[in-house]
Amino acid sequence: MRNLKDLTYGIVGLGIMGGSIAKAVREHILSQNGAKGKIYVCNRSTACLTQALNEGVADKAFTSTEYDKLLPECDIVYVCLYPHATLEFLKTNREYFKSGAVVTDISGVKGIFEKELPSILRDDVDFVIGHPMAGGEKEGYAHSTASMFINHNYILCPIKSNKEENLELMRRFITEIGFTRITETTCDIHDYKIGFTSQLCHVIACSLVDSAKDEGITAFGGGSFEDLTRIAMINAPLWTELFVSNKEKLVNHIEVFEKQINAFKEAIKTENKEKLMELMEESREKRIKMGSIRTIAK
Amino acid sequence: MRNLKDLTYGIVGLGIMGGSIAKAVREHILSQNGAKGKIYVCNRSTACLTQALNEGVADKAFTSTEYDKLLPECDIVYVCLYPHATLEFLKTNREYFKSGAVVTDISGVKGIFEKELPSILRDDVDFVIGHPMAGGEKEGYAHSTASMFINHNYILCPIKSNKEENLELMRRFITEIGFTRITETTCDIHDYKIGFTSQLCHVIACSLVDSAKDEGITAFGGGSFEDLTRIAMINAPLWTELFVSNKEKLVNHIEVFEKQINAFKEAIKTENKEKLMELMEESREKRIKMGSIRTIAK
Repeated sequence: MRNLKDLTYGIVGLGIMGGSIAKAVREHILSQNGAKGKIYVCNRSTACLTQALNEGVADKAFTSTEYDKLLPECDIVYVCLYPHATLEFLKTNREYFKSGAVVTDISGVKGIFEKELPSILRDDVDFVIGHPMAGGEKEGYAHSTASMFINHNYILCPIKSNKEENLELMRRFITEIGFTRITETTCDIHDYKIGFTSQLCHVIACSLVDSAKDEGITAFGGGSFEDLTRIAMINAPLWTELFVSNKEKLVNHIEVFEKQINAFKEAIKTENKEKLMELMEESREKRIKMGSIRTIAK
Repeated sequence: MRNLKDLTYGIVGLGIMGGSIAKAVREHILSQNGAKGKIYVCNRSTACLTQALNEGVADKAFTSTEYDKLLPECDIVYVCLYPHATLEFLKTNREYFKSGAVVTDISGVKGIFEKELPSILRDDVDFVIGHPMAGGEKEGYAHSTASMFINHNYILCPIKSNKEENLELMRRFITEIGFTRITETTCDIHDYKIGFTSQLCHVIACSLVDSAKDEGITAFGGGSFEDLTRIAMINAPLWTELFVSNKEKLVNHIEVFEKQINAFKEAIKTENKEKLMELMEESREKRIKMGSIRTIAK
């Protein structure tokens, strides 16, 4: 079994996610006694590369025209780009991967990967489909931290072609960089559930902010509006891609939600107190059972 | 001008709000040098009364059959009951208030007060309509704290009958117990804006939880769903009353929100990326301008 502390890690795309992965590997894995592993990073713009080198986060940095130099060195490649850019990257650079490399990504939609991967990847390169459930409304390497993943969830979507030893390597890796709950499921179930817990929530938050008549509304805020709309400070190009890539499932979730809010509206309109009590008792009970989704604060 | 540290405060209803007001008065006002003021509390159930006495929060405690003993003593009366129970309390006990007393409440709807008060109150008792914008999904005296109001918003809705000196007394009082931003407006505007920032958010949060197919959804949570649904652990009887008391304005807000989420749905369905970008750029810009609604965390 390969030892995590002796591997060479390639991080493609050094934004908040790629940067946090690099920092977490440095702090939690390569700081171990006798570690021989390396972190190689690459990014289209170069300011963050210089920063990562200066901070001792990266051992070497590459630009986006040097994948042919980077990829042959890397045992684990973390592609931290937008979903379609990730697929494009895999297609364009398939010949450069090291034989036996484990490749993975961070995309919030997985069905397109399951569909496209067979025609893209080489037999001697193992792509492990996964989704680190962490992030935030902040963007860029400047906001990355080594502690970003502590106590967060990770979803793995194993496919037939995955070697068990590589899945096990990923599980160990994910755990070492801080994730505490790994859920393994299919790409289809992933996209269905993420369509609900993440995408639907972003659609709701944006719709709520877009509904606000004026920005002065905040003088009337007691906390609820702030909590519901933090994620509306959204990365529009990324989420446009996520929403469209998962449109059938997401539209289905929106419609179920629309029915629920309509039931509330009708009960309020008709002053049906019994129905309102019933709807709210249900949400109270359900939400309490769900408990705290993460155990510590961000 | 009356000195806050020498007044007798009557807190009617010792739940999380009444308890926090009592504790904040004790800590921030009556702890001042030479303070001669008193805190008198009353509540239907008596366990919290004993606790408040034992903790030194209250000087005297009364049951709900002893309003005739409590009210003649109090310079400021804070009624911390549900909205209709507050009106009922004022009607039933109008004869017991001390002449010159300032009375106020905590209800999340204000239109019903403006409408009902003239026929309820005596000329020598001044009711200041206001709304402390603080709280949480926790209930009861056990969850009350002296720091609950620090950096929160307060809405005052002055009416013609209010004496300027009593409004000024309330402003000083509110500031002393921690509130940092006081907004003064009409009951009508209050109910319109609160219908948006608070009530609509609660309807959305409950509808979202009610839409969840299973409670195991939390393994797929990255934080968004948790943030959007914390307030779904709702006090159903209280919010039923709030929603119904403000139904015209709330239903209007729900309908505007429904139109916005429908615009999102149509853009996703038709893969209209340009429209999605536009909707999200709008929410991003707007939300950033709104800034942090409160300056410190809960």
